[in-house]
Amino acid sequence: MSSSRDIDTLIEMMARLPGLGPRSARRAVLHMIRKRERLLTPLADAMQTVAATARECAVCGNIGSAEVCDICTDPRRATGQICVVEDVADLWAMERGQAFRGRYHVLGGTLSALDGVGPETLRIPQLGERIAEEGITEVILALGATVDGQTTAHYIADQLEGRVTLTSLAQGVPVGGELDYLDDGTIGAALAARQSV
Amino acid sequence: MSSSRDIDTLIEMMARLPGLGPRSARRAVLHMIRKRERLLTPLADAMQTVAATARECAVCGNIGSAEVCDICTDPRRATGQICVVEDVADLWAMERGQAFRGRYHVLGGTLSALDGVGPETLRIPQLGERIAEEGITEVILALGATVDGQTTAHYIADQLEGRVTLTSLAQGVPVGGELDYLDDGTIGAALAARQSV
Repeated sequence: MSSSRDIDTLIEMMARLPGLGPRSARRAVLHMIRKRERLLTPLADAMQTVAATARECAVCGNIGSAEVCDICTDPRRATGQICVVEDVADLWAMERGQAFRGRYHVLGGTLSALDGVGPETLRIPQLGERIAEEGITEVILALGATVDGQTTAHYIADQLEGRVTLTSLAQGVPVGGELDYLDDGTIGAALAARQSV
Repeated sequence: MSSSRDIDTLIEMMARLPGLGPRSARRAVLHMIRKRERLLTPLADAMQTVAATARECAVCGNIGSAEVCDICTDPRRATGQICVVEDVADLWAMERGQAFRGRYHVLGGTLSALDGVGPETLRIPQLGERIAEEGITEVILALGATVDGQTTAHYIADQLEGRVTLTSLAQGVPVGGELDYLDDGTIGAALAARQSV
């Protein structure tokens, strides 16, 4: 479509990224070519670096650049708490919240009979091992409020019952949320978990 | 926010692309890391190639990988017609339409007194030179139906009057468009330019 095969290849690849389609990929590529020194070349270099160094943390499953990630090696985070999340994006979201100071465990998905995802496919056995090794006292299940997420949470809770304190994230009205825009399930959950003021 | 400075750098750069923000950049980067062999490394290579080879065509202003682009060097496209577009994205859009078989001239923007864009900033003088050199008989003004686009079209028409046939793209109902969803201006233009059936 452009007059260069190289540019067409780049556009096709960019269009395969989530959130981009053919049209936005073309826009992005033209933008990058216009800002070659300040964007295209540094971006290509940054990708090469990440492609060469990014790896999964051997302990928690986070993605970083060392065998064990910064969170797992930080002694201040040995709080005896582990927060269980579905994937790395959820871990990063928790970190942005800056509310949790313990360590994480990334499952790598949720249990799903339909898709053939069993406990061994996820990192559930490793969670059990970590609880013994790291002297964990509390496991916080920060899984999605979906059917698969909650099925997984129940399965883990069954496995760990009696060994640690099990908690899950509170359900309720999001901060800044307006009641009018909330679904019925969230309003119901927030009402059931109402607190005295 | 992630546990690697390299990954954070990559996310920040991706977030500077048009159409992507911090959230979609994070999603895209995680997706690329998961598909390292099939997406991240080839994408970095494609960017390096484009950064090294992409250049503006010396004749028409299209972006390609040679000093003069494939369209300008194609003898079958020496039809005596030049289509004037605002930028390279518009040229690519015209090419996707596969309706025009002549050559192009990319202005690189529109005239704008407010932004200090005069005829010399754009490639308007070069257009005059090409008309003489290439034996052009028709100039098609395919500029946006905006105030700046139409101002630019009028300016070029004034400059070229008497030297070539000047035409502009028809305005009307888009193919597949429903009247109910069209703005009043488009309906008015389509009515004024109505054709006998």
